[in-house]
Amino acid sequence: MTLPEKQTGEIGDKERDALYRIIFSRRDVRGQFLADPIEDQVLSRILYAAHYAPSVGFMQPWNFILIRSIEIKEKIHQAFLKAHNEAAEMFSGRKKELYRRFKLEGILESPVNICVTCDTSRSGPVVIGRTHIDTMDRYSSVCAIQNLWLAARAEGLGVGWVSIIDEEKLKTILDIPADVVPVGYLCIGKVSHFWQKPELESAGWLPRLALDKLVDFERWNGQPDLEQSSILHQIKKDADFPMQIQKK
Amino acid sequence: MTLPEKQTGEIGDKERDALYRIIFSRRDVRGQFLADPIEDQVLSRILYAAHYAPSVGFMQPWNFILIRSIEIKEKIHQAFLKAHNEAAEMFSGRKKELYRRFKLEGILESPVNICVTCDTSRSGPVVIGRTHIDTMDRYSSVCAIQNLWLAARAEGLGVGWVSIIDEEKLKTILDIPADVVPVGYLCIGKVSHFWQKPELESAGWLPRLALDKLVDFERWNGQPDLEQSSILHQIKKDADFPMQIQKK
Repeated sequence: MTLPEKQTGEIGDKERDALYRIIFSRRDVRGQFLADPIEDQVLSRILYAAHYAPSVGFMQPWNFILIRSIEIKEKIHQAFLKAHNEAAEMFSGRKKELYRRFKLEGILESPVNICVTCDTSRSGPVVIGRTHIDTMDRYSSVCAIQNLWLAARAEGLGVGWVSIIDEEKLKTILDIPADVVPVGYLCIGKVSHFWQKPELESAGWLPRLALDKLVDFERWNGQPDLEQSSILHQIKKDADFPMQIQKK
Repeated sequence: MTLPEKQTGEIGDKERDALYRIIFSRRDVRGQFLADPIEDQVLSRILYAAHYAPSVGFMQPWNFILIRSIEIKEKIHQAFLKAHNEAAEMFSGRKKELYRRFKLEGILESPVNICVTCDTSRSGPVVIGRTHIDTMDRYSSVCAIQNLWLAARAEGLGVGWVSIIDEEKLKTILDIPADVVPVGYLCIGKVSHFWQKPELESAGWLPRLALDKLVDFERWNGQPDLEQSSILHQIKKDADFPMQIQKK
């Protein structure tokens, strides 16, 4: 039996900063799609990024359904519109007005839609790491989506995640079997530009939370002792780090 | 009302390749942790990477519980051991033997554990994009975990996700309230080395699937027409892309 091989070489500071720049520049894109096709080489690379996500028990539960047909897109768009109208009724007053003004998807404008699924039956009923938390397989597919999203941003492509849709309707339109969950429906394409900040933040819907308020110690809501407070101090000091890196 | 600002500057080819290299070099680390502490600057940066993940309706549902106390780690480790023994009984024959030989966590050896949670009640009962698919908030916390995982790899830190644990037990140990889901329990630290391939792959537990078998067209299991088959051709051609980039 041969021993597994170790990785050689390190990730340098410039490569590390590139990752941060991509993470902080990533946006959920809805209104800036161009109709230009995506080159096969680029689409292939971002799919490999997705496929090399972590997966529970190495089950790789994902499939990638590529949708370019206008007929299918129209059906998805109709399902979105129905859910979107239902959603609007759940808000009231100023929030309802504001909600109605948001553009929340680019299904028809983006050249490629991808439905990323999770086949819960893949590799059999017992999966290492899914024995006690049964959502772990869907979480793996989410990791694949996040990898794809970052890779797309690095390639200059926008990605928007459409979640305002009835899941059963989506399964019917795409012939998805009972054991398979459509985890994310993504719109992908070249864009006119990326916004510096998330649109919901710019519109004043919700503010960016302060990271230091979201860090707890040893337990939920646990406060830091003297020694632990140094990391909170560092986090406050780094509040401008994401914007500085993005503009680099 | 001022218009939002656009991003300036592009992501260059070298930055793009850095992202791919980090994605393909990321591993789930269990047995290679060193006891050395993580610098505050580094921990702060990887937490910002997590905090800038996409979140449904910009709700940012995550908290990050930092665990360094040996008492808490011991309790978590006991909960892991109990679940791990239960899990072993679910396999039989050669698989059971093999399962027992795997090291599946580094709770005590890693200097920092982080529990990434999802507060389902954050920002009120109605959340844009969560109106029809109620798991979207937990998926946002998974995106935060994946960002953190990649940032950690870029910083030379290993991350292991412990999912063999009873969720209610975990909530009790960390005082997590009813509305909050502990989405991921992570072990983080410097490492002696990263393996080239996932450990479950090297051990022959499951093979890496061929990506071209996981791409469908227009619908589940949909086969490509002549025009669509060019992307499949490209994917087959790129089969060595992840390993080539990793070794760059």
